[in-house]
Order: sequence, then C-alpha cells, then structure tokens
Amino acid sequence: MGESILSTEPRAVRRYTTCGELRRQHIGRTVTLKGWVHRRRDHGRLIFLDLRDRYGITQVVANPAHSSAAHEVAEHVRAEYVLAVTGQVVARPEGTINPALSTGEIEVLADQIEILNPAKTPPFPIAEETDVDESLRLEYRYLDLRRARLQRNLLLRHQVVRFIRHYLEERDFVEIETPMLIKSTPEGARDYVVPSRIFPGHFYALPQSPQQLKQLLMVAGFDRYYQIARCMRDEDLRADRQPEFTQIDLEMSFVDVEDVLELIEGLYTEMFERFASKPLQAKPFPRLTYEEAMRRYGSDKPDLRFGLEIDDVSSVFQNTSFGVFRSVLAEGGVIRGFAVPGFADAPRSQLDQLTEIARSFGAKGLVWLALQQDSGRLIARSPIAKFLNEDEIATLAQRLQAGPGDLVLLVADAEDTAATILGRLRLHVGRERKLIDESVHAFCWVIDPPLFEWNEEEQRWEAMHHPFTSPRDEDLPILDSDPSKVRAKAYDLVADGFELGTGSIRIHRREVQNKIFSIMGYDDTEIERRFGHLLRAFEYGAPPHGGMAPGLDRTIMILAGESSLREVIAFPKNQRAQDLMLGAPSPLAERQLRELHLRVVYPEDQDTTSGA
Amino acid sequence: MGESILSTEPRAVRRYTTCGELRRQHIGRTVTLKGWVHRRRDHGRLIFLDLRDRYGITQVVANPAHSSAAHEVAEHVRAEYVLAVTGQVVARPEGTINPALSTGEIEVLADQIEILNPAKTPPFPIAEETDVDESLRLEYRYLDLRRARLQRNLLLRHQVVRFIRHYLEERDFVEIETPMLIKSTPEGARDYVVPSRIFPGHFYALPQSPQQLKQLLMVAGFDRYYQIARCMRDEDLRADRQPEFTQIDLEMSFVDVEDVLELIEGLYTEMFERFASKPLQAKPFPRLTYEEAMRRYGSDKPDLRFGLEIDDVSSVFQNTSFGVFRSVLAEGGVIRGFAVPGFADAPRSQLDQLTEIARSFGAKGLVWLALQQDSGRLIARSPIAKFLNEDEIATLAQRLQAGPGDLVLLVADAEDTAATILGRLRLHVGRERKLIDESVHAFCWVIDPPLFEWNEEEQRWEAMHHPFTSPRDEDLPILDSDPSKVRAKAYDLVADGFELGTGSIRIHRREVQNKIFSIMGYDDTEIERRFGHLLRAFEYGAPPHGGMAPGLDRTIMILAGESSLREVIAFPKNQRAQDLMLGAPSPLAERQLRELHLRVVYPEDQDTTSGA
Repeated sequence: MGESILSTEPRAVRRYTTCGELRRQHIGRTVTLKGWVHRRRDHGRLIFLDLRDRYGITQVVANPAHSSAAHEVAEHVRAEYVLAVTGQVVARPEGTINPALSTGEIEVLADQIEILNPAKTPPFPIAEETDVDESLRLEYRYLDLRRARLQRNLLLRHQVVRFIRHYLEERDFVEIETPMLIKSTPEGARDYVVPSRIFPGHFYALPQSPQQLKQLLMVAGFDRYYQIARCMRDEDLRADRQPEFTQIDLEMSFVDVEDVLELIEGLYTEMFERFASKPLQAKPFPRLTYEEAMRRYGSDKPDLRFGLEIDDVSSVFQNTSFGVFRSVLAEGGVIRGFAVPGFADAPRSQLDQLTEIARSFGAKGLVWLALQQDSGRLIARSPIAKFLNEDEIATLAQRLQAGPGDLVLLVADAEDTAATILGRLRLHVGRERKLIDESVHAFCWVIDPPLFEWNEEEQRWEAMHHPFTSPRDEDLPILDSDPSKVRAKAYDLVADGFELGTGSIRIHRREVQNKIFSIMGYDDTEIERRFGHLLRAFEYGAPPHGGMAPGLDRTIMILAGESSLREVIAFPKNQRAQDLMLGAPSPLAERQLRELHLRVVYPEDQDTTSGA
Repeated sequence: MGESILSTEPRAVRRYTTCGELRRQHIGRTVTLKGWVHRRRDHGRLIFLDLRDRYGITQVVANPAHSSAAHEVAEHVRAEYVLAVTGQVVARPEGTINPALSTGEIEVLADQIEILNPAKTPPFPIAEETDVDESLRLEYRYLDLRRARLQRNLLLRHQVVRFIRHYLEERDFVEIETPMLIKSTPEGARDYVVPSRIFPGHFYALPQSPQQLKQLLMVAGFDRYYQIARCMRDEDLRADRQPEFTQIDLEMSFVDVEDVLELIEGLYTEMFERFASKPLQAKPFPRLTYEEAMRRYGSDKPDLRFGLEIDDVSSVFQNTSFGVFRSVLAEGGVIRGFAVPGFADAPRSQLDQLTEIARSFGAKGLVWLALQQDSGRLIARSPIAKFLNEDEIATLAQRLQAGPGDLVLLVADAEDTAATILGRLRLHVGRERKLIDESVHAFCWVIDPPLFEWNEEEQRWEAMHHPFTSPRDEDLPILDSDPSKVRAKAYDLVADGFELGTGSIRIHRREVQNKIFSIMGYDDTEIERRFGHLLRAFEYGAPPHGGMAPGLDRTIMILAGESSLREVIAFPKNQRAQDLMLGAPSPLAERQLRELHLRVVYPEDQDTTSGA
C-alpha cells in the first residue's frame, strides 16, 4: 500500500497520498489515493477518472489490460463516488500533459479501485462553476462547499485568520475568550436573547460585540487583547448583513488614535499585499476627516477607486439669477456638484433618468450643465442656461475641474441632504460609466467624526459611535456649549467603499464620562442600569485605552473578490435568518418551553389580546 | 520621552517601556513606564513605588532631592493608581538587588510622575495571594484578573491555544467557523435556545458541540477541520462544569482509530512536555479497553497516578463457606477488591468509616482483611476470618499482590455495581492515604467501549456515545444478535483521573446507520426529524471519517495545576449559571418579549394553570 510521500510533511500525517501531491519525480512509485470522482471519461477501452480532494486532482486510468478488476469497478463509478485507488504513478503520454494541473505530468494506473461510498446524483454539478439558485445552494451547502469557489474562499479565510493571529501575537496581543451568554448591552441593535431555566423571566443576551468585556480586560491589566470574536445581532437583514458575524476584536492600553491606526494599517497593508489579487491604490492609506469625506464624497465610506469628486460651489452662485438656487442659499443651504468627464454628449433620455434617480435619493431636482467649447469660450447647454453668465460657467468649471465635453451635475439643498444625495449619485454614475478602477483596492481612514448626533424623535443628543467614545482633547472645552461641534477620537477603516471596521479611544476618566451621560440626558438610574458594572470597574484604576473591531467576513469578501458575505461563510443564514440546511429555527417541544417558563404568543393571540 | 527599547520587538509596538523589560544594560537611559502601583513604601524621604503591568514589575524611586514635583505626586498615590513615570534607569544600590525580579538589578529614578487615573481601595488586595470569597472575586472579576494567579493562567491558556493551532495547522487542519445559531441537536444534554423574532414559536439552539456540522464539513471535502469551538449546555451545574465551555474540536477524513489516537497523543505529549510543570508518567500513553478500565480501576477515567488496582477474586471464593459471598456468586455477581499496602494496622474506627463510605457509594457492605504474618503463615484479621481457610487467604493475597501488613478490601455485588463502588473507594483511599503521585501527569486511553447502553426506563438500547459512532468491524456480525457485546470505535483521553475528551470514528455507510437506528428503536419519522439533513448529506459521497473534541478548559486546568475550571476562564459563571460581574441573566423589557412572541409564565402562574 502507498504512503504519503511528501517528505516535508510532519511524520505520519496520513497513510495515503493526497490528490494534489504527485509530480514527475514520483513516477514509478505505488500509491494509494483517496478522494471523490470529479469527472469520469470513457475513452474506448480506457476509463479516465479525475480523483479530487482538497489538495488537488489526480488523473486515474483504468486499463482492462492492466487490471480487469479495477476496470470493472471503474465502469460502475459515477461523479462524487468516494474511492480508494491503488496503482502506479506513470508519466502521461506525450501530448496529454496538462500544464493547468499541478499533477498534470503524471497519471495513476489503477491496480485496484475500492468504492468507499457511492453517491447519488447531486442536485447541481460539483465540477462546473455553473450558476445555481441560491436557496438550493444553501440547502445542500455541504455540496456547494465541495465546489472550487467555496473551497477557495474558506481556505483563504483560514489563511488570513492565521496571518492576523500571527501579526497580533507578534505584537504582544493576547487572545482571550469572552463569554457568549452575557447581559443585554446598549449597543443599539437588537440583541438575540437566551432564556434562563433557573431564573424565570430572566434572559442572557448573545454578544453583539464584546465591547464592554474587552474594556474590562484593559482594566484587568491585560494590556493588549484580541479575539476572532463571534457576534450576533437580531437585525432586519439587508443584502450584505448576516445575523451571525465575526470581528477581529482588539483593544490596547496606554494608546491614542495614532497607535491604533498604525497597528491596523500595518495589519491590512501586509494582509492585502499577501492575499489580495490586486495591489493597493495608495500607501499609506489616505486619511479623510469625516467632514471632508462627507463634503468631497458625500459618504462616510467613500469609494476612492474613482474620481467624480464633489465640491461646494455655493460661492459661484452668490449672485445668481436662478430663483431656486437663490432661495436655497437664502435658507442656509448649499449648492454642490461634480463633473462627469466626457459625458457632455449624454442624450436627453439619460439626463432625465439621472434626474429621476436623484429624486429617488431624495433630491428636489438635479441641475445638469453640458460644457462645450464655442469659438474659444466655454458655454453650457443646460435647462438653466439662460440664468447663467459666462463668469459663473467659467468659475464653476474651474472649481469642479471640468472642461469642454464634461457634464456637470448640481444639487441645491440643505448641507447634509445635498451631501448624501450627491454621494449616492456619484456612486451611481461611477458604476454606470464604469469609472471604478477594479484593478486596485482603495483603502482610506475616515477620522474625527462628530461625537454626538441629534435624535430628532427623542429630542436629545445620542452617541454616534458608543457612549464610551472619547471626545478629542481640544474639543473638551465646547462639550457643554456646542455638542454638535465636538469631534470624537473615533476612526473608520474603509476599503473600496465598504466600511471594514470602526473603533475609538475610550473615555477612562469618570468625570468626562459623567459629562457625556448628562449631555445625553441619562439620569443616574439609567446610567447604573446600563453601565453600572463598567463604570464601577473604572473607579479602580482604568488605563487609557482604545481599540477597534474590523469585520472579518467583509474583509474576506473583499479579498476574495466576492460581492456577498454568504460566499465567505461556511454555513450562512438566508435573508430571513434561516439555516436552510439544518432547518433552523424550528419549533420547540412543549416540555422545553415549560422548563424555560415561557409561552408562545402567536400573532393571532396578540391581536386578540390587544383587541380585548 | 522614553521609547520601547527592546530591539527584538517589531517596529513601533509601543511608545513607552513596559514594566518587565529593563535590565542592567539599560542603565543611563531615560524611559517612560506606564502601569499600576503594585506597592508603595515610604522610606524616610524616599518613596518607593513598585509599578506593575502584564510584563513585570519595576521599582520607581521618588527622591525629593532629585525631583520635588515627582516626590510630591508620589506622596499622594495609592495602590492600583495608574501612573506614567518618566525617569532615568539607575543601578540599585549594593545590597538592594532583588534576584527574584527580572528587573531586580535596576530602578527608575523619577523625574516626573503623572497620575493617569486614581483608584479606589480594591475590595481585596491585588498584590497578595490571599484567600478571597469566590463571589466577591467573581463580582470584581476585573480586579481578580489583575492578580498573579489569573494573569498566569490566562496567559498560559493563550500560549497553549497558540501551540494547538500551530500543531494542527502543520498537519493540514483548516480552521472553519461553524454557526452559533443552529438547530436543536440530540446530543443528550439540554440546549440553550434563542427565540426567533421572524418566526413566532421557532427557536435556534446554541451548539453543545458542532458535531453534525463538522461531519458535514467532511462530506464537503475539507479533509481536516478544527476549531477552538465555543459550546453551551444548559445542564444542572456540578462543581467542575460551566454552562459555557470550549473544546478543541477536530475531524479527519479517511482515518481509523489509530490515526486519531496518534494525532491527539502527539498533541498532548508535546503540549505537556512544553507547558506542564510536571513530567508525564508514561510515554506512549497506556491504552486500556473500557472493560479493562472498569475491571481494574472501577472507572472509565482511571487515575493511574497510584496503584490500588482492583481485581476479580470471585474464583478464590468458589467454595466459600461465607454465606453472603456464596449467594452473590450464585446470583451471577462478583467478588472484587484491592489491597492497601501497609494499612493492616488501621484502627477499627477507620475501618468502620471505610465501610460507611462504601455504603454511601451504594455497597451493601465492605469486607476487610488485615493480613499478618504468623510464624511463617499468612493469616487475616477480619470480621469474616472464621469463614476463611488458609488457602483462600493465600490465593487472595497472591491475586491482589498483597502481603503481611497490607489491608484487603472486598465488595461482593453485581458486576457493574461492584466495579463502580470499588472505583470510588479506590479513589477515596488513594487520596486519604496520600498515595497519589502528585509529581507526574498520568495519561491513558480508554478504548473499545460498548456501542449501546440499555435504557432501563424506556426499555430500549441507546447510543453510549452518539448514534453516529461506528461499531468495530469485527463486531458487525453480532449487531443484531447481541447488541450489548458490540464495541464502538470510540476512545476517551484521560489525564490524572479526568476525562479530557472523547471521540469516535463515525458511521459513513447508510446501511450500517439504518441498522443502528433500528436497534435503538427509532422509526423513520423520528430519524428524519432528528438526523434528516445529516443522513441526506451522507447519500452524496461521505468519506470515512472520525474525530475528537478534547475539552480546552479542563486541559488548561490540569496544566495550570488548578482544581476549578473557574480559575482558567476569564469570565466564568457561578454554579447557578450567573455572571455576577455583569449581572446576567436579567429581566427583559416587555417590548422585547412582545417582539419575540413570548410571555413569561412565572412558577405561581404555572401552578394556577396546572390546577385549572
């Protein structure tokens, strides 16, 4: 019987040969391969079997002249049968060498073929990368996982996680497991909860992130903590969300913003240089303040792989005769826009469509100007052409770095609204016009976001990030007087227009924390109920600390060039949070409910109750 | 300001010096240390501060003649204050060098001391290893975690996990995350469940182990999977159980028992040789069949660190005149016992106590024989001395390898009962007589356990391990005729009398699986409901596979020399499954319950309901 012949492997890793290891130098050896029938081809008297495992594909030949027993078995096997094949490694005949396959110079002439397990015909082909309905893929996930795409993605994920661990452990980070059954935290989104059997009416929460626990580990003096942390969030699911997700959770003591940025930027630079198929657009990563990101890209996660930079051109229209612009400016609004290079010849239908799209984003209207050269002068074809003078057109073009042949798009509205609409429009046009440079990965930092945002509904300030985020030192004096202007020691890492992760330096001084809570309008009872244990811990010597939690799933998705998180998670849920393979969630036995002191109130019961 | 001066560290790990890195060669450098005040001593004009962080302790001296500002601050700091100290590294004066401390040759003469955060007096001392009430320790876990013991244990845990990952990854194991929100599995113990908001009355289960998922990963062709897997079990908690635990979960394709044993034995041998403070008693690990373990040690997790081996001496009493023995033997029972060396002089009170203890273990009685030399002949002092002849005593002594001065203890009962009672008695005597060799770690394998055990209550066979465990090939023929005799391809790893983990080779052929289910009396509906997805997966080409899941917490507990799992888990629960620090579980808001379609039925309500 054959033995594993890879001399670099540790002793006795396996007692057989994998389908990825045979090369020209093994010719003449007798080996045993184990794997799945990837393809079976009947060439006259010869039967060819491509045998597949995680490590590769090896061609097996069943020749009745060599072994009629092996040939006999080969006649009956079908795709996805599991076989053990013993035979000799031989050179492939001249002209049949397959350079695309690492084992393509050899084949194994079968002495003996044993069927370890037969297989029914799979509901979709394993060997071909055909499009398959996603529900079917999820239901038969164990078969989908056999296909090259998911094998590749999950092996990449494994390699990347190894790399991350190594990178962090080299820098003194300690991996510490935090509990899964914790207390409901005020992280914003809805918790998944777990009823207690011992305490009727009491529940644990599953962590949305180990935020408070990692801060407590800093109080405990562990200095640098990390965890590839499993998190759960009972959210309404959008296209690229999963109820379960994984984050690269980390926290450091005695650091400020620069230390965290340096660490994470080093991690992602090295990671992408090792594992991505595309280069980084820029190193070091550009840093944008939140204000700048919103102004120039209309987004807190700008995609820097294309231009179409937005600018504020309010000053150009200071004395405009166009009424709409005049009144927006009079109300304190802004006029902003961007130029689309070489799109001045856009047909009217496309311009109308753009206007429609801007409206769907919330715009009251969209102004377009097609710039043209007219005997040396720059003129604009535009619905508002008659309100524009030559100076305005020239200044506008200069501000937006536009020239003849370019299309200028303008939105006039309140500042936040204009920014958001133009940000979405920029993305739309960038995609439509194929301006996105798909040959690079573009990272950036978005820093110094506002500490608070105004909750219109509850008429109070709330923390934009979370209530432990530290204000910037220079903004401490205006905490009381102008909360809206206070910036946070927070930072987002953005890649290709996706937010990869967010983090902050935390408040470690009680008096600052109290001030923040009072601005947020929390009373002492509320503070104690929500944050009591953390605040108490901070009284016993909390070090300055901060951290971050980049999303692992999103990171792998971008590295793998996928557009859905489901392609990089072994067993994902669908958009109704169901596991179609396992059939979860599922009803509980009455006995279990009783033990948990619970009764289910079905929607019709609820109606009855509320009607009574 | 000082910089990190450890040249072997990666660039820019930190901008200050840790409390563990300064040595004689750094004398003359100006550094900044950050850490906690471990101890403060006032020696006349000089104030000494031991500054502590995860990496060590460095002595800081505040001398008013050198810096009155630093001395002024030092006068006000107390234990556990967080400081930043800048000063010069100087040699300690002759006679004050502390060889117990890695930084003991130097001290830092403070130029400047900044209080980063003050600290209240902790509820228990951090610097001393005093005994503290465990509830208090759990409530202030973040302070308990600062103490040397838990710092040591959690850093050990981190190192061991690193080692395990490295060991497995070198051998082609891929780390794959399996979901936390799964379907209730029939693993035996009670699931923790999570209500679905989207599907009223439906629940997810939290994994007790990723058993079925790892088998599906083998079907998916990942060949070798591992995960440091988080598991949860809603059990009634015993002393050394936790509702949350972590296992070294792994699975391999195309393997048999020997492959798994070799892998795991290599892992644990290397792990203990690297990290344990005591040597291994034996290498390779002894292997006992389950039958042998039960017979010789009365336990399926024998502690081999001491002798007191049990043997069956029924044959010695074949013709006994002692009525009790005679009738037990006549009923098919056994007489078993062990000898306690040098304990023949046990006073009557101790023998009575042993009898009491045996009774508390379920024995009907305990027979003791104190062996003595009497002019060359072996005689026995014993309550049943008059029933024993010289031959019987001699043969008994020979069988139990006993001689003059030894005490023989015998139990007569049904085989299983006798085994269990003697196993517990052996442990008790071993501990009481201090026979346990605490200077070594004793590993062993317990293999070939029965596949089935009889469920007296339900009058049916059930799987001893789990229903996918493969029978041994040579026992397949007696599956139908004598299920009780069928042995499983299962194995337990035992260390120092603790079961570290259990595993098995799984059934991969559908016809064998069907046979097992029919012996267990499952009908098709039951099979489909419980195992449908797994069995369906097996029809598409399942490789032979098997694995194991050693407990990580228990492993670290033994390595660290601790006797409770709570000492090796960062944030453990107490014996009522509460997190005393976070205050979990806790009541849920009415709104949350409504969203989950649940109503709490408090015990009094239940009474009312059942009374109605």
